[in-house]
Amino acid sequence: MNNVIMMSPEINKLIEQALREDISAEDITTNAIVNGWERGEVQLIAKEDAILAGLGIFYQVFRFLDPDMIMETKAKDGDSLKRGEIVAVLQGDLRALLSGERTALNFLQRMSGIASFTHEWVQELEGSKTKLLDTRKTTPNMRIFEKYAVKVGGGENHRYNLSDGVLIKDNHIHAAGGVGEAIGHVRRETSFVRRIEVEVESLDMLREALDEKADIIMLDNMTTELMKTAIEMIDGKAITECSGNITKGRLKELSTIGLDFISCGALTHSSGIRDFSLKNLRVIGG
Amino acid sequence: MNNVIMMSPEINKLIEQALREDISAEDITTNAIVNGWERGEVQLIAKEDAILAGLGIFYQVFRFLDPDMIMETKAKDGDSLKRGEIVAVLQGDLRALLSGERTALNFLQRMSGIASFTHEWVQELEGSKTKLLDTRKTTPNMRIFEKYAVKVGGGENHRYNLSDGVLIKDNHIHAAGGVGEAIGHVRRETSFVRRIEVEVESLDMLREALDEKADIIMLDNMTTELMKTAIEMIDGKAITECSGNITKGRLKELSTIGLDFISCGALTHSSGIRDFSLKNLRVIGG
Amino acid sequence: MNNVIMMSPEINKLIEQALREDISAEDITTNAIVNGWERGEVQLIAKEDAILAGLGIFYQVFRFLDPDMIMETKAKDGDSLKRGEIVAVLQGDLRALLSGERTALNFLQRMSGIASFTHEWVQELEGSKTKLLDTRKTTPNMRIFEKYAVKVGGGENHRYNLSDGVLIKDNHIHAAGGVGEAIGHVRRETSFVRRIEVEVESLDMLREALDEKADIIMLDNMTTELMKTAIEMIDGKAITECSGNITKGRLKELSTIGLDFISCGALTHSSGIRDFSLKNLRVIGG
Amino acid sequence: MNNVIMMSPEINKLIEQALREDISAEDITTNAIVNGWERGEVQLIAKEDAILAGLGIFYQVFRFLDPDMIMETKAKDGDSLKRGEIVAVLQGDLRALLSGERTALNFLQRMSGIASFTHEWVQELEGSKTKLLDTRKTTPNMRIFEKYAVKVGGGENHRYNLSDGVLIKDNHIHAAGGVGEAIGHVRRETSFVRRIEVEVESLDMLREALDEKADIIMLDNMTTELMKTAIEMIDGKAITECSGNITKGRLKELSTIGLDFISCGALTHSSGIRDFSLKNLRVIGG
Amino acid sequence: MNNVIMMSPEINKLIEQALREDISAEDITTNAIVNGWERGEVQLIAKEDAILAGLGIFYQVFRFLDPDMIMETKAKDGDSLKRGEIVAVLQGDLRALLSGERTALNFLQRMSGIASFTHEWVQELEGSKTKLLDTRKTTPNMRIFEKYAVKVGGGENHRYNLSDGVLIKDNHIHAAGGVGEAIGHVRRETSFVRRIEVEVESLDMLREALDEKADIIMLDNMTTELMKTAIEMIDGKAITECSGNITKGRLKELSTIGLDFISCGALTHSSGIRDFSLKNLRVIGG
Amino acid sequence: MNNVIMMSPEINKLIEQALREDISAEDITTNAIVNGWERGEVQLIAKEDAILAGLGIFYQVFRFLDPDMIMETKAKDGDSLKRGEIVAVLQGDLRALLSGERTALNFLQRMSGIASFTHEWVQELEGSKTKLLDTRKTTPNMRIFEKYAVKVGGGENHRYNLSDGVLIKDNHIHAAGGVGEAIGHVRRETSFVRRIEVEVESLDMLREALDEKADIIMLDNMTTELMKTAIEMIDGKAITECSGNITKGRLKELSTIGLDFISCGALTHSSGIRDFSLKNLRVIGG
Repeated sequence: MNNVIMMSPEINKLIEQALREDISAEDITTNAIVNGWERGEVQLIAKEDAILAGLGIFYQVFRFLDPDMIMETKAKDGDSLKRGEIVAVLQGDLRALLSGERTALNFLQRMSGIASFTHEWVQELEGSKTKLLDTRKTTPNMRIFEKYAVKVGGGENHRYNLSDGVLIKDNHIHAAGGVGEAIGHVRRETSFVRRIEVEVESLDMLREALDEKADIIMLDNMTTELMKTAIEMIDGKAITECSGNITKGRLKELSTIGLDFISCGALTHSSGIRDFSLKNLRVIGG
Repeated sequence: MNNVIMMSPEINKLIEQALREDISAEDITTNAIVNGWERGEVQLIAKEDAILAGLGIFYQVFRFLDPDMIMETKAKDGDSLKRGEIVAVLQGDLRALLSGERTALNFLQRMSGIASFTHEWVQELEGSKTKLLDTRKTTPNMRIFEKYAVKVGGGENHRYNLSDGVLIKDNHIHAAGGVGEAIGHVRRETSFVRRIEVEVESLDMLREALDEKADIIMLDNMTTELMKTAIEMIDGKAITECSGNITKGRLKELSTIGLDFISCGALTHSSGIRDFSLKNLRVIGG
Repeated sequence: MNNVIMMSPEINKLIEQALREDISAEDITTNAIVNGWERGEVQLIAKEDAILAGLGIFYQVFRFLDPDMIMETKAKDGDSLKRGEIVAVLQGDLRALLSGERTALNFLQRMSGIASFTHEWVQELEGSKTKLLDTRKTTPNMRIFEKYAVKVGGGENHRYNLSDGVLIKDNHIHAAGGVGEAIGHVRRETSFVRRIEVEVESLDMLREALDEKADIIMLDNMTTELMKTAIEMIDGKAITECSGNITKGRLKELSTIGLDFISCGALTHSSGIRDFSLKNLRVIGG
Repeated sequence: MNNVIMMSPEINKLIEQALREDISAEDITTNAIVNGWERGEVQLIAKEDAILAGLGIFYQVFRFLDPDMIMETKAKDGDSLKRGEIVAVLQGDLRALLSGERTALNFLQRMSGIASFTHEWVQELEGSKTKLLDTRKTTPNMRIFEKYAVKVGGGENHRYNLSDGVLIKDNHIHAAGGVGEAIGHVRRETSFVRRIEVEVESLDMLREALDEKADIIMLDNMTTELMKTAIEMIDGKAITECSGNITKGRLKELSTIGLDFISCGALTHSSGIRDFSLKNLRVIGG
Repeated sequence: MNNVIMMSPEINKLIEQALREDISAEDITTNAIVNGWERGEVQLIAKEDAILAGLGIFYQVFRFLDPDMIMETKAKDGDSLKRGEIVAVLQGDLRALLSGERTALNFLQRMSGIASFTHEWVQELEGSKTKLLDTRKTTPNMRIFEKYAVKVGGGENHRYNLSDGVLIKDNHIHAAGGVGEAIGHVRRETSFVRRIEVEVESLDMLREALDEKADIIMLDNMTTELMKTAIEMIDGKAITECSGNITKGRLKELSTIGLDFISCGALTHSSGIRDFSLKNLRVIGG
Repeated sequence: MNNVIMMSPEINKLIEQALREDISAEDITTNAIVNGWERGEVQLIAKEDAILAGLGIFYQVFRFLDPDMIMETKAKDGDSLKRGEIVAVLQGDLRALLSGERTALNFLQRMSGIASFTHEWVQELEGSKTKLLDTRKTTPNMRIFEKYAVKVGGGENHRYNLSDGVLIKDNHIHAAGGVGEAIGHVRRETSFVRRIEVEVESLDMLREALDEKADIIMLDNMTTELMKTAIEMIDGKAITECSGNITKGRLKELSTIGLDFISCGALTHSSGIRDFSLKNLRVIGG
């Protein structure tokens, strides 16, 4: 599996931990039924239409239980799957197939849920320059998987975490005593490789942010009308991002006013899953 | 915070890890703006109606960053919150308030989302003996938080993981060569403290399960009519659970046919979140 | 090695940690003597009669130090070994053979000690329906290995830990205010997949437990006479377990009174070890 | 608790892990019965005569679950306890008292078992210069606790692990090609802070070891007669240790022949436990 | 201690691990000499002139061994210390003072070494707009401490790691097939919050980078003359960084040609340490 | 790679952690440019003369990212490299080559820096019996790598940490109340496998240490003259070590006065690095 996510040294730790969550001692049902090594085969099937995301992670779960597990793939991350489609065939230790099933599907379903949801929203923006962004509103200890799924679905990633991007929010501005003061502190203290983003809630705040040459302006919870005025004021002098109260229904309208980005927490916190299952298990031999 | 979830030695590990996910090095924005210790205060506010779940976890996130953080609570887990309600007030190191915000809210919002969603579904079952159950379709590395939230919302917990409950599913039956064989293996091999549950998809399979004295029968993906017949056949000789294709709209009908339990993955995989925010940050002193 | 214990994602963590306990920096003796890669072979020999348990764990210790280590087995877990018998032959990096020896044997000897001890006790119960159970009186961080060894020796496992089985003990009853109250709380709060077990010390407590329909009754520290009366009172309405002051000498007598289970901490806390050693080390080539 | 073992940064990791072993999700019985914070008190009582070891570890287990737990001690490590004696009184969160009980006792009982067993053996050596030593035959992931208990019981510690002491054993000698070669390698390669110990099985091997000026000679599996001859040959030029087939009955005899040390794996692998329990639980208030 | 570095959830893990590296079992010397709790006091003294960095980390090491350790500080990070100056006074468990000394000093000396070295280099740039930068050439598992020390010394931080900044280096350009191709890929695939930096070794590469609107240009291993030409070509259209073969002697000259930044691995890989010691230990009471 | 350091179970944990430090989420530059699997090759080249140390560690870094990575070596640890020399050729996943480069080089450069520096100092002692020792003044969490590099460079290792060697220092003597008291405590309490070393600062302290039969005497911060007198007094009755204010210039003189060892913290804390780079990256195929 050659997805970029497989190159992160973080994922093995998280997958192993998820397996331990589901198998704190042993899989008592499987171990009662299959007492020794037997070779089995099973199909991964899409139970609803979906954008596939996380097939490499799905496979890696099984490889922790059986390093010799083989997966033949019929599709790859980003592919559009039809309900009933066979996505992959796994061959390996029968017990690993049975014990790894739920954890592997829990990753795949959630990642495909996010990719599919993102894909639907992104289509609303087609034809415009505006792009859809994720946020840090991810599930704890799942961010690397969820941000990857957003990209698979056609969205773009905002900063990964508090350590790798500057975003001055309302509470920072309160703490600093003003937009200008906040930007000043940040410019002095943070690495030049980072663009400085400021969240503004009014045209007054916007004016201050422009005076201080913020690189990115987040227009927070504004009406479409107010955003139009703001974008005119900004006039290309900063990258623009719109945030707050974003619904799918509003995307088309928002795509016409010249925004660079629309960010939306729902991509990762409210997408729901897409259903997959392991079917047609066969025992091949012992 | 006296919730039972706070008594689990697992949670500190997971909370600390979630904080490291969001702060892999340092919070560059906050550290640029607040360079030394200052005391701050902030309010936790419900941005939509919700059943509160996870307030102890929310607090614990901040205590990792500032062991002297104080939280005054206005509500407790299980309470029904109104939009705009102040839920708690935090006082402590201003930097901890700013840096811990997102991680703390990510836990609280998801847990309250599950509790609220569960609460709505449970109300459909009122007046019947039938109870709503969660599944193992939880987010990887979030199970302890998600199963707790289901209980806060009025649902009940199915087995926690593969190590602590027996559930013989279709793939196990294929591997064993039949319902009877599977139950036999499990009865010989697993601890007597566990009830044996079998998933059946037809009346033939049900008959075999009853012959083998399964303790719990899961009626999988059956029509309501077929389930009625099944429940008559079971006639109190086993606990009954219904699973597959459960929607909120079907709950009322299902509550009338004498089922003991209805289990539903959507509680933990598709509930979405409830929105909260930290507002009215004040710097109190240095 | 196809033992079910090898399918637990917990064991690798514990084995690796045990190796680090014994090799906090490097094996200074071995590294002084064998400075580069050389191929070696060594025999695992039983130094006393034993029931073998833990051969897969033994092998896994060496594979952490040399992933290419090969083990040819002459016996498998559960086999009855005679003093002097060759159990297995290992081939691989000479340094791994020398450095892994003690940790591998420490696992194998303790697990075989428990299996052998259990096996001897179980034979006292032959011909009766009564079965021998372990407890949670295991060595910290060794439970998965010790409970597996009990099964290899012919015993059965009680609950694994506090999270996967209900056992209402004297201190719980004090805290709840009575047997009935305790059972009531537990029935309302815990998952239906769990059987409820109560520890009783008198016939009065037993009566209350039966009234509340406890699933399993533990008769704690009772005389054989008193247990007979209790079993008559229970009359098949609950599973029975006897606990406290169990000695090997008492087992025969206890096997005649109709108990379902006898549980005994000594299996895991006082079995002692069975002795094995690595002998006839040969250097094969460099 | 001021025992030296409490100063090791290793112990907290191991205690926390042991608690997670016993509480992989939550203590379902306790949490069903005690739903919120209540203050409780309980007594730690010796159920048989014992040398106390591990009281600080016992206390630390509870402090992980309730950092405000208080322990009033009536005895300290090394004290000789009588059956029925109250050893300590714990006060704190009732749930912590119930949930931590088994893990805390598992440490205390095993450590006191080792200390008591060691104490009995050490008394056989009274009046002689010969001292009793432990070995590396400890339970995996318990060494720090077990070696401490040996010292509490009056024994002495051999090297801690493969990284901190040189012991050239039979397999090393085979690998090196001879006693002399082995000592030569080790002298060149290992730190001067370490004494070099060699295991010899015959007078020929002893002669070689003396020629190479080994600092410590382990007389392995020799008869008492042969050891006498060996000790005369050594004549103070090396420290002497006897090992192999040591029983309590042989200690007196061995104490008369001028050995410096007798090492014995049984101290840590076959001591059994001493029984303690938590009794007289009282709820103090909520 | 209010330094921003203390707000990182990473540091506790690394400090605890460093303590375990130095105390794999117990501090045998200290525990032999101080067998129980005694209160002690000791002074931290600068043994050479230095810029202080890491005092909070130094203190945290001791607090792991004794949570009640108190430190009275006479200086703070960034202060210029004179040889012989008392920097702080520690009071707490005598054993913690003795056992933590080396690990605490190892952090403090290295961090102060980097801060002092950086401070000296930064002074060469005084009066110019050019700033001194660190690199990723840090000691494995020490980056958070080393990058903090660079800032304390007056330097600035380049990106923290591969996940939070884009730097297209020679090997990336080879893999992509050209400067333009590489920038194109990166612009499409990475988050808009990141500035894109390209390393160029010639004016041809520079031209391509400018055509593709790179945000930051790293002039790699160029002569001062060539850099002058490059900076003229860039003419404010990108931030400029110079890298490769930077010596202290070259800094003055480089500060005159209009560079924004000079980056230098020596800051973290070749600074050496500044010497401190713990002196005047006093036992205060038991 | 057959270096002894590769046999330590500690190193994999530290290497994996170093990779996570540098890749907290993903390598955004590399993943943007190389989106799928491609085979690449690159050369490791010495950029200055050096004693090579750490080639196995260097290789292991890449194998974490690509278990199928192949390394053809042209030199081995301890070899003397010339500037420009090709040391090894790596073949494997192109992304692993790019993402692992910096972490792998950070280990190799530091280890080779220490080996090279040690090698130069050791040459000053040629012809004498005096040997060069490292100390515990290592970089936190790098000791195993740094002590190995000292040996590669021709130095010897002092004790590894506080758990495996006795060194009574000035602060211990203050705490014990005198040299004699300190040695007495240690002799009673620590394992007989350890030699007892005492640090003395005057002839009076030396006399006490000799009276108490210390095994090793560290002459701390003495003039060469004073050391001569000390060595005469010691007269072979203890091993001698000199410590404090050691510079390369003093080594020749010190080598003539009969010292057994000279220990020097600079070996590990002030050696600087030797420069290496990965060059001539080629894409071989996809």
